[in-house]
Amino acid sequence: MTRPLPRMRDQYRFFRPIDLRWNDVDRFGHVNNAVFFEFFDTTVNAWLAENGIFQEDYDPMCVVVRHACDYFLEVKPSDKVEVALAIETIGTSSLTYLSALFRVGEDQPAAQGTYVHVAVDRTTRRPTPIGPKAIRICENLLIATV
Amino acid sequence: MTRPLPRMRDQYRFFRPIDLRWNDVDRFGHVNNAVFFEFFDTTVNAWLAENGIFQEDYDPMCVVVRHACDYFLEVKPSDKVEVALAIETIGTSSLTYLSALFRVGEDQPAAQGTYVHVAVDRTTRRPTPIGPKAIRICENLLIATV
Amino acid sequence: MTRPLPRMRDQYRFFRPIDLRWNDVDRFGHVNNAVFFEFFDTTVNAWLAENGIFQEDYDPMCVVVRHACDYFLEVKPSDKVEVALAIETIGTSSLTYLSALFRVGEDQPAAQGTYVHVAVDRTTRRPTPIGPKAIRICENLLIATV
Amino acid sequence: MTRPLPRMRDQYRFFRPIDLRWNDVDRFGHVNNAVFFEFFDTTVNAWLAENGIFQEDYDPMCVVVRHACDYFLEVKPSDKVEVALAIETIGTSSLTYLSALFRVGEDQPAAQGTYVHVAVDRTTRRPTPIGPKAIRICENLLIATV
Repeated sequence: MTRPLPRMRDQYRFFRPIDLRWNDVDRFGHVNNAVFFEFFDTTVNAWLAENGIFQEDYDPMCVVVRHACDYFLEVKPSDKVEVALAIETIGTSSLTYLSALFRVGEDQPAAQGTYVHVAVDRTTRRPTPIGPKAIRICENLLIATV
Repeated sequence: MTRPLPRMRDQYRFFRPIDLRWNDVDRFGHVNNAVFFEFFDTTVNAWLAENGIFQEDYDPMCVVVRHACDYFLEVKPSDKVEVALAIETIGTSSLTYLSALFRVGEDQPAAQGTYVHVAVDRTTRRPTPIGPKAIRICENLLIATV
Repeated sequence: MTRPLPRMRDQYRFFRPIDLRWNDVDRFGHVNNAVFFEFFDTTVNAWLAENGIFQEDYDPMCVVVRHACDYFLEVKPSDKVEVALAIETIGTSSLTYLSALFRVGEDQPAAQGTYVHVAVDRTTRRPTPIGPKAIRICENLLIATV
Repeated sequence: MTRPLPRMRDQYRFFRPIDLRWNDVDRFGHVNNAVFFEFFDTTVNAWLAENGIFQEDYDPMCVVVRHACDYFLEVKPSDKVEVALAIETIGTSSLTYLSALFRVGEDQPAAQGTYVHVAVDRTTRRPTPIGPKAIRICENLLIATV
């Protein structure tokens, strides 16, 4: 088993606080592994909504084809946390986001993820180019190469 | 972006039906991507409980260090589905499970995942060997090489 | 504080097993109180789907205006459980369901709920009669008066 | 069917913002009814933690015996919301909280709830007095009688 290197805070471009909920915590007293995907999903969709792309009246639409998370540190219900986001790759019809959960004030992530969107035509549901407008906006989120 | 090959049903060793819930479905009318991780987490833990390893009175305990899912097909709320499980690698102190969601009667998965457990000492929380008893049991779940 | 009397199993008209999930359990090691509402919501919607009323192509649609649960017994993750359903009142434009969670084989509920639907016109979202077809079907679920 | 009167914002004593998550929303495009109970549960527990009562090292502990919600207005994923809390009744061994979800800046609640805690002895799990320290603290949350 190989573990990925943690990406530090300064590589990300967008940050959004996430409130923990009582039922995010499992019987181990820490945030359950499955809940991190809700955090990342929420943050990607919040960023897209803020930027007005791939919303309900937008063609193409995006579907998630891959979602992954590596866990480095336990998150406790009393922790203050935020999700960080960047884009690693802008393909013709796909977007690969990098996500992470940071405790506020820390540079090392508690967890980090990968999230892949594929643009599909709303009618045929076949892959289609994401288009120049979305490319231009997504370039603002390209990962910092420090 | 490269996509993994789907692993067919006959490579898995353990199957468990999963009931879909009304709130598993998001505004697209299909099962939300984050919910698949609840399915896989539930199934791994059900298999461990059936086999009496890594339960609350067992030392070592296991923590999840990686969880990933690739999505191939939409799952609709009326679908009857089951989770399939196998183990790909038994390391000294880690276990790599392969999981998948199948619609009942289909050989192609709707989604497939990877789930990595690391055994840690209950007190120190440092990695520790999973031990001969757990190895013997986990060998029953080793992926079929058809 | 007054507590309601538990309604026994033989008062209900529809039963549906529910699989517990790993993350239904909170740090107390029992099913979290908020999760029971997912169970009841899922069961009401499953019954409506089986009977073909108030589905996506049906007018009127129903909205939930009240949901309540009283808890009598802890539910453990290893418990086998089922949700029971009946209808207490069929109003002109409202339906009051009674729900309960039973451990398989037990007559006393672990929890019981009330769930109120109001029929609204799909366009105006104003209350509207539920109509004779739905009334006829819902009468099959009227609570047994034993 | 009778509907309760909405309690206005100025009757509550404690407020806490809640971030909505992508998967709080169901296929109707609004926050699912079952999710409100997570909001209320989270807020009660946050208030107790801030005040240092009924935490993991505290005897007695509290168990939820009733949870109910009435819904007045749809909540959309783009809404900014907060949960409000008050205590209606302090019994010998029970606490009845009133909760509500408000959109920021509004006096009328989108939903309001009731949440009943019973204090139980940690060992016997039998009801027991909540004790003078908790009573003193809970009096700060007693509903405003405007």
